Amino acid sequence: MFTRHPGNPLLRPPAVRPSRTDLEVIGTFNAGAALYQTETLLLLRVAERPTNTPPGEIWCPYYEAGSLQFHVVRRDDPTYDTRDSRFVQNVQTGDLWLTSISHLRLARSRDGVQFMIGDTPWLLPTTPEEAFGVEDARITAMDGVYYVNYTAVSQYGIATALVATRDFVNIERLGIIFPPANRDVTLFPQKVRGQYVSYHRPMPGMFGRYNIWLATSPDLVRWGDHRRVLEASATGWESGRVGGGAPPILTAQGWLSIYHAADRSDRYALGAFLTPVDEPARVIARSRTPILAPEAPYETRGFFPNVVFTCGAVVQGDTLRLYYGAADETIALAETSLSALLSSLLP
Amino acid sequence: MFTRHPGNPLLRPPAVRPSRTDLEVIGTFNAGAALYQTETLLLLRVAERPTNTPPGEIWCPYYEAGSLQFHVVRRDDPTYDTRDSRFVQNVQTGDLWLTSISHLRLARSRDGVQFMIGDTPWLLPTTPEEAFGVEDARITAMDGVYYVNYTAVSQYGIATALVATRDFVNIERLGIIFPPANRDVTLFPQKVRGQYVSYHRPMPGMFGRYNIWLATSPDLVRWGDHRRVLEASATGWESGRVGGGAPPILTAQGWLSIYHAADRSDRYALGAFLTPVDEPARVIARSRTPILAPEAPYETRGFFPNVVFTCGAVVQGDTLRLYYGAADETIALAETSLSALLSSLLP
Repeated sequence: MFTRHPGNPLLRPPAVRPSRTDLEVIGTFNAGAALYQTETLLLLRVAERPTNTPPGEIWCPYYEAGSLQFHVVRRDDPTYDTRDSRFVQNVQTGDLWLTSISHLRLARSRDGVQFMIGDTPWLLPTTPEEAFGVEDARITAMDGVYYVNYTAVSQYGIATALVATRDFVNIERLGIIFPPANRDVTLFPQKVRGQYVSYHRPMPGMFGRYNIWLATSPDLVRWGDHRRVLEASATGWESGRVGGGAPPILTAQGWLSIYHAADRSDRYALGAFLTPVDEPARVIARSRTPILAPEAPYETRGFFPNVVFTCGAVVQGDTLRLYYGAADETIALAETSLSALLSSLLP
Repeated sequence: MFTRHPGNPLLRPPAVRPSRTDLEVIGTFNAGAALYQTETLLLLRVAERPTNTPPGEIWCPYYEAGSLQFHVVRRDDPTYDTRDSRFVQNVQTGDLWLTSISHLRLARSRDGVQFMIGDTPWLLPTTPEEAFGVEDARITAMDGVYYVNYTAVSQYGIATALVATRDFVNIERLGIIFPPANRDVTLFPQKVRGQYVSYHRPMPGMFGRYNIWLATSPDLVRWGDHRRVLEASATGWESGRVGGGAPPILTAQGWLSIYHAADRSDRYALGAFLTPVDEPARVIARSRTPILAPEAPYETRGFFPNVVFTCGAVVQGDTLRLYYGAADETIALAETSLSALLSSLLP
């Protein structure tokens, strides 16, 4: 179905200038995508970690009042569980600290393949709810405004926040739109029946699988009318979780959504589903097998192996260009015919 | 501060008729409370489990399309973890089933002490999101309408739903207002700055403690503008979690909220905090120690020991009557002077 670009991965960590001299970039992945004027824009997630830390210590970065701080944990401190390289956890309080921190970075391209990556962050963690990073931007254009929702991570949990921009320079913050634990939000590019619509993915903890829900809003800030849309399966490639990927794409057949699914081994693949234009909670066709699964070396090896994960696609004519994070480390591109993708979905 | 009623516990499981002959009542607790006409009304949580099940089996009740079903698990089935008496878990899929199921039952009283308990359920699990039960009602009166929010439990997680009634007979469903995982919602009895307001308690999973947040809404259905209000502490009686208790009470000093807190040993106590009338997210005074903690025998022993947990209080003059669940098994009553409670809160 999809053809991977021969230049993949398009964007790798060495191409990204760190936001500070005491940090190194370990991942550039999970990018929101949009067509803006004559360019393709990506909002990259850039993950960084401190360099030159003492071998016996783990320095966990976080932002406080706009300033980068480090929570230092000694590797031999029995209060902390340090076995997972991605985080440390205080076993007495349960408090978690991440070993890396993400911000959003703008990249721009005339051909959608060769990208100029900004030298400085586009959005840095600012609020207390973003102290551990901002991740996984999705871009939705409506009436000349580009809405960017992203994951805000902190000691308060994983939430979804929203900002708006007209020019990708001036940014207006609209706050937390889905409280913890909720991520993988995809905002529709137009109202349905007079309301804004988004898919969201609550994380219900020990009760319940990770399913895709729909919500509606009068103002993009207050969301409700929650309904389930797509559920993780009991077995197979969708048995671990499902969650929103690229924001829904309006087609002649209805709303096309490309989403991610993981199995119980945390292998992340992509699927697609279709809903009527005026009934975005009702799935009328979907992929029974992945439309893209980790197979290329840069997908099966990396920071977190066996992951393809999208936050954005752009459509020009019948061509759908899918930008996706590979192995939580790089950005790759795959293309398909929109009509062929739609035809492949089964009722 | 509080004086326990000498007749405590006011309501115990043997006083409640089961909803079906093949069920027994094991708990009547966590009741919403309201003054209605000349009476005090309670909406009890009634927990039931099947009787006469084979010793080698656990029958997990759930509602499907309005009909009670049982998921039967053999105690020797290695697919299931059956060690916790409250639930069983499929260790392969992670799916949970509860060993009991709750509905809401109306009880009414002329003196607030002697209650007539309805013979039949007031609200039974109906939607798929309620399959494992409806729990912990809170009642908020506004303009002649009584809004009842409650916890909806299912394989989709723990969510909060809302219904409305004018007469406690006819019930209008307003759907899920906070998606999983979120409970302990307390709705304010009047708008603030033109918006409905509620506290809510998202459960952020492995990231983040259980804190009290505020949200606002134009229509009671769609909620946003999420802000943190009160946080669990690092140590002490509030170190496990905090969550809403009784809906906020308007006083001359501001909004009074009685909330619950648990420590790391799951000992549940009650606290109180105060906010300005027009700034319900800003705590200006609070209790530094519990205003009520499990001490009486019916609080320290029972289905889940060492719990006092409130979903509702009523105020008449300077008297605050607090109805509370004791040990997840019975309903108890404690009274205090409203002015004395307010005076005890520290800036």
